[in-house]
Amino acid sequence: MPMPMPMPSEMNGKVDINGYSNPNETAGKVILCRAAVAWGPAQPLVMEEICVDPPQELEVRIKILFTSICHTDLSAWKGENEMNRAYPRILGHEAAGVVESVGEGVMDMEAGDHVVPIFNGECGDCVYCKCEKTNLCEKFRVNPLKRGMTKDGKCRFSTKDGKPIFHFLNTSTFSEYTVLDSACLVKIDSKAPLKKMTLLSCGVSTGLGAAWNTADVQAGSTVAIFGLGAVGLAVAEGARARGASKIIGIDINPDKFIKGERMGMTDFLNPKDLEKPVHEKIREMTKGGVDYSFECAGNLDVLREAFLSTHDGWGLTVVLGIHPTPRMLPLHPMELFDGRRIMGSVFGDFKGKTQLPHFAKQCMRGVVNLDEFITHELPFGKINEALQLLVDGKSLRCLLHL
Amino acid sequence: MPMPMPMPSEMNGKVDINGYSNPNETAGKVILCRAAVAWGPAQPLVMEEICVDPPQELEVRIKILFTSICHTDLSAWKGENEMNRAYPRILGHEAAGVVESVGEGVMDMEAGDHVVPIFNGECGDCVYCKCEKTNLCEKFRVNPLKRGMTKDGKCRFSTKDGKPIFHFLNTSTFSEYTVLDSACLVKIDSKAPLKKMTLLSCGVSTGLGAAWNTADVQAGSTVAIFGLGAVGLAVAEGARARGASKIIGIDINPDKFIKGERMGMTDFLNPKDLEKPVHEKIREMTKGGVDYSFECAGNLDVLREAFLSTHDGWGLTVVLGIHPTPRMLPLHPMELFDGRRIMGSVFGDFKGKTQLPHFAKQCMRGVVNLDEFITHELPFGKINEALQLLVDGKSLRCLLHL
Ligand SMILES: NC(=O)c1ccc[n+]([C@@H]2O[C@H](COP(=O)([O-])OP(=O)(O)OC[C@H]3O[C@@H](n4cnc5c(N)ncnc54)[C@H](O)[C@@H]3O)[C@@H](O)[C@H]2O)c1
Ligand SMILES: NC(=O)c1ccc[n+]([C@@H]2O[C@H](COP(=O)([O-])OP(=O)(O)OC[C@H]3O[C@@H](n4cnc5c(N)ncnc54)[C@H](O)[C@@H]3O)[C@@H](O)[C@H]2O)c1
Ligand SMILES: [Zn+2]
Ligand SMILES: [Zn+2]
Ligand SMILES: [Zn+2]
Ligand SMILES: [Zn+2]
Repeated sequence: MPMPMPMPSEMNGKVDINGYSNPNETAGKVILCRAAVAWGPAQPLVMEEICVDPPQELEVRIKILFTSICHTDLSAWKGENEMNRAYPRILGHEAAGVVESVGEGVMDMEAGDHVVPIFNGECGDCVYCKCEKTNLCEKFRVNPLKRGMTKDGKCRFSTKDGKPIFHFLNTSTFSEYTVLDSACLVKIDSKAPLKKMTLLSCGVSTGLGAAWNTADVQAGSTVAIFGLGAVGLAVAEGARARGASKIIGIDINPDKFIKGERMGMTDFLNPKDLEKPVHEKIREMTKGGVDYSFECAGNLDVLREAFLSTHDGWGLTVVLGIHPTPRMLPLHPMELFDGRRIMGSVFGDFKGKTQLPHFAKQCMRGVVNLDEFITHELPFGKINEALQLLVDGKSLRCLLHL
Repeated sequence: MPMPMPMPSEMNGKVDINGYSNPNETAGKVILCRAAVAWGPAQPLVMEEICVDPPQELEVRIKILFTSICHTDLSAWKGENEMNRAYPRILGHEAAGVVESVGEGVMDMEAGDHVVPIFNGECGDCVYCKCEKTNLCEKFRVNPLKRGMTKDGKCRFSTKDGKPIFHFLNTSTFSEYTVLDSACLVKIDSKAPLKKMTLLSCGVSTGLGAAWNTADVQAGSTVAIFGLGAVGLAVAEGARARGASKIIGIDINPDKFIKGERMGMTDFLNPKDLEKPVHEKIREMTKGGVDYSFECAGNLDVLREAFLSTHDGWGLTVVLGIHPTPRMLPLHPMELFDGRRIMGSVFGDFKGKTQLPHFAKQCMRGVVNLDEFITHELPFGKINEALQLLVDGKSLRCLLHL
């Protein structure tokens, strides 16, 4: 599908963008475009005109076509982790777009390529990237304190009067244009529907990968999923695809059960309706506990319930939720002797650049049903409405069109 | 080697034992014999004449020939876990002996068989025993609150005036005779040297199994072991047998390093001599951390150091030490996102009855060097001296001859 290419207007060496840009006109120049800027904890994002610098060595500037909001954006927007507050800032890490221009040394992408940002990058070169047991890259893993680019710690975003605007989670996708390290960008088959590919940028990959890569859910096994947002439901989708025999969904918002049922979950529990702790109920339902449980709510009491819901001897709990408070793990060391295991999973243990292109193909072949995850669509300008939909538990993912 | 068999003297239907017994004379009768009885926390054990009932259905009465003392006995002797105090009691769980008589339904053993008690039993029939992922038997796993027999909750030991004496850890080996569930007794090749087989009863199997079964230590990998008692040194022996390239021993008692060196450990650290936390030093020595760490000291601060000593991305910490205080795991949930894993291991994940006979053969073939673990030998009557040797950190295992 050929893209319309209006001529951008130029002033003071900055290129003002209206609609799609022609890379020939913008490469190497500062781009003036719209972004939703966070100015303080829990304050509505403000649609501002900002400046986006050209990409430097091993960096890529992309035009975002779609972005959506993950709970991790919500936590950052609320400023839940105090050490991680930095304003003004451009949040957002789930998106899909097109390469506008590449910096020096970028060999695997060029202008026009379809891409998906990954907050958990893959340099391909470090001891971690070369080890098949982890997807944590030495240079481009998540560092909650990072707010500039890897190369120089500086920002590629600024206000029109030259004030730097901080980056977020290696990505910053709530902007018409963003600059990322090429290690944090995955090239996707140009035939893949870009809108849906947005989901692969975080939530769906995280949940599915947790089931496939981290837990390696086996056919016939039993699964409990705590928190049925996009992440939890993607775990369900992954467990269903693997042939799990029982997939129990737990949420305090019963609206989520409707979606869960459509996605192959077999049972639902609302802790508020139970007279006993959820883990007791789950143990009764599963002859002693599930084989795998997943914490996708970001709550430590829920984490403990998830842990105790698994079968002793072999149960595995995968922690996906983000826990920004100083509170320690609510587990006693002797509880480890019951043979229950626990581990964390970042980005579903996918090595993004290596594995996402194949995963995208699996999605296109229908191995995974992506449609159910997009519950709302809105223009970029209504991003605060989209945030509110997630806060209110009404959306899984609201796709914002840029 | 034929055993001398003096005729036991009989009175009131009880058989008084002097030296080895003739099963024909004792089977079905109460045996009068010596045991080291604990009467209160940290009080010297008292050598008493006690009564040992005949074994009931699926139980076995054995004559103990050797017993040794594990740190778990020490913890129980001190009464560290208040909920687990019960007096009078016969402690002890590492031993080797000969079957005196079997109860109804015991098919796999008969009088005269050489046996080794296992505190972590294996019924062979339950869902756990049938699952290859765990060695925790539904009926005969460790239950710290258990103080009687599985069948009826009653004691098979009593004082001469009829007061029950409590059992300990499914075994109670500080006695000339003890009664166990047949699920907690492993028949060993009669050609195996029984004295050394005592070590397989707990410490050595636990440490070796933790390296082989729980962690599955790979050739060329790096290992850190915290606490160089018999358990820690058995981990080292297991790691060495697997071809680990670096085995770092950590202890606050530098006397342990001499032994450690003889057993193939490559480096030693005394936290008291360091100006920085041990985990920092270990990360420096190993390009970011060891592949596996083992906590064999029973101390939660040590556990945290062990956890942080492993390489992020793939490190695994195996917890072996017993942690009887109410203090929770000193780990933050977000630390799990660094890809470090932690799990507990009971009895080195050996399924005792199924796997110990083969392990005993491996020991006889020299795959594992058992000699180094026996640092002292004393007559049974000097059991309090043996306890003190362990308290003082002077012994690994002191073999008591009965
Ligand atoms: N590990 C990673 O790589 C990674 C990636 C993406 C998201 N996350 C985290 O995963 C979590 C889920 O993300 P999401 O986008 O699906 O969030 P979401 O807000 O869409 O979903 C969270 C769900 O949890 C439910 N919930 C809240 N409290 C609960 C409780 N006490 N008991 C049961 N359910 C409860 C909510 O009702 C909601 O349905 C967040 O903590 C997010 O930060 C982690
Ligand atoms: N999980 C199991 O199945 C199992 C089985 C047997 C023993 N255990 C437990 O394993 C642990 C070790 O048993 P053991 O018999 O080898 O004990 P041990 O007393 O012989 O050895 C413990 C060692 O830890 C060292 N140590 C103590 N504090 C330390 C510190 N702060 N830093 C470093 N080293 C320290 C001591 O100096 C000693 O060398 C105990 O907690 C015991 O209860 C568990
Ligand atoms: Zn996310
Ligand atoms: Zn890397
Ligand atoms: Zn022991
Ligand atoms: Zn069993």
